[in-house]
Amino acid sequence: MRILTRSEIQKRFNASRAIDRLVDGFICDWHGDVQLPASQNFRFEEADGDCCIKSAYVAGQPTFFVKVSTGFYQNPSRGLPSNNGLILGLSAQTGEPVVLLQDEGWLTCIRTALTGAIVARLMAPETTQCIGVLGTGEQARLQLQCLRDTISCRSVVVWGRGAPQLELFCRDASQMGFDVAIAPDAEGVARKCNLIVTTTPSRGPLLQREWIRPGTHITAVGADAPGKQELDARIVGDAAVVLVDSRKQCAEYGELSHAIRASLRTVDGTISLGAALATGDRLRTEESQITVADLTGLAIQDAAVAASLLDED
Amino acid sequence: MRILTRSEIQKRFNASRAIDRLVDGFICDWHGDVQLPASQNFRFEEADGDCCIKSAYVAGQPTFFVKVSTGFYQNPSRGLPSNNGLILGLSAQTGEPVVLLQDEGWLTCIRTALTGAIVARLMAPETTQCIGVLGTGEQARLQLQCLRDTISCRSVVVWGRGAPQLELFCRDASQMGFDVAIAPDAEGVARKCNLIVTTTPSRGPLLQREWIRPGTHITAVGADAPGKQELDARIVGDAAVVLVDSRKQCAEYGELSHAIRASLRTVDGTISLGAALATGDRLRTEESQITVADLTGLAIQDAAVAASLLDED
Repeated sequence: MRILTRSEIQKRFNASRAIDRLVDGFICDWHGDVQLPASQNFRFEEADGDCCIKSAYVAGQPTFFVKVSTGFYQNPSRGLPSNNGLILGLSAQTGEPVVLLQDEGWLTCIRTALTGAIVARLMAPETTQCIGVLGTGEQARLQLQCLRDTISCRSVVVWGRGAPQLELFCRDASQMGFDVAIAPDAEGVARKCNLIVTTTPSRGPLLQREWIRPGTHITAVGADAPGKQELDARIVGDAAVVLVDSRKQCAEYGELSHAIRASLRTVDGTISLGAALATGDRLRTEESQITVADLTGLAIQDAAVAASLLDED
Repeated sequence: MRILTRSEIQKRFNASRAIDRLVDGFICDWHGDVQLPASQNFRFEEADGDCCIKSAYVAGQPTFFVKVSTGFYQNPSRGLPSNNGLILGLSAQTGEPVVLLQDEGWLTCIRTALTGAIVARLMAPETTQCIGVLGTGEQARLQLQCLRDTISCRSVVVWGRGAPQLELFCRDASQMGFDVAIAPDAEGVARKCNLIVTTTPSRGPLLQREWIRPGTHITAVGADAPGKQELDARIVGDAAVVLVDSRKQCAEYGELSHAIRASLRTVDGTISLGAALATGDRLRTEESQITVADLTGLAIQDAAVAASLLDED
């Protein structure tokens, strides 16, 4: 079994190859050509931690993947990152373990960010005046980094809790080539931007319906578990297009779930990312429309980025 | 993360420490002090293979475990073993991966065999005249090896398909210090033995009710998935004691499931191994009673043997 460390993975990683794999993965999922067993979840009350085990196999591929990811929220006080994990690849021909990717959670972050870029290709407004970012963590940085390769806009407005984190984020965004401004609140982001990415662990709506400019697209990646929410349910209710990575998951705990509970939208009133990619139709039919992508995260994405590392150069 | 290979694991393995851990694990399971998410399962039709992911955490332990095990049944024709797999241990305090046990499936085999020995302590007849073994694979050998440390009987009668495998089994059993005879069929085993271990992947009853001598104990480990069966349902129906490792699993696909379907026994008419170990009561109340142990395999066993490897010497 081959073992790759986080730094080896990062060195080997090729974003465009990973995007191709992600697109294939979403389309295969939509065609039903994947095996995705239900996640396994642990909760460690005393240590304030959790663990999620997600596995996926795309029919016809040589390898299937098992991802173990952990989040222990008191780790930073010990000088450790909150998130950790690894991905194991096994042969779908012989069952032998073939690769262990000790990515420490990085592949989960990058696949989420690359999916944000894939969504932007499908849904971003014709002209992005300014990119809005809620949150200042690793996911916020990676989303911006992946958007840089997808759209030409180089203006960013960011909002987050904590001045030191905001300062660090601005420094990093500047180094990526963006002009960055800090907004005093989420409303300040919404009033200025027509492409917004929300990347926080919020448990209540940060963006209100009234603040959203016509023609805005919002990609929400924070709501990946029950209880989480970043968008006012009326945004999801009023959007001209609501794209979901998984109808099942989004209806259960994504942004969509809050709109369903408020009777503002039904599952049938959404389009899945796999379907959108398969047909390739432009989702926005008028430039004044508000659109939303609700991304909860699928094992198929982990399998896709992991497989991209095994592709021959 | 520490990585141990199969041979390092075997060198480090201490059976009595593992048994202590297994007993603790079954008792904790009975007390409800464990987290056992539902298994994840893959089926690879073309390659005739499957994969099962089982995870377990015993409350209060420093480590939780994820086991990935595979069975690819055309492997022997390529010179590869059918079974493979590994166990990953992660910190329940920080989520960090702490150990990778590349046991290639060996720990699953040995924990099943050690559980057979634990059951024999509870359920074997006062005097075992002869040990019967159905099957000639690695599990048959390991069961015998573990029984050797538990009961004094040194006579074995074995039945299996395939003369070469039978010959190899007899050679190995002799080397363990047993007098071994080959029976022409399963009936020949049942007629001579009062402690029988069944270790085959059979999909229909091998042992008939009429053949079983009064006072016999049978430990059945083959029925670990739907469709498998080694015992006539009437044996489970008529037994004075039916011990199960998991009421849920045994009712779903263990030997018990066939007796339930034939209305010969209910789940309430069984005792779980954890309960039996917690109370420590002798299960057989008369020497003429027939008793059965139905073992389907639990993630808690994997966690127990894996944890035993991390114990300080």
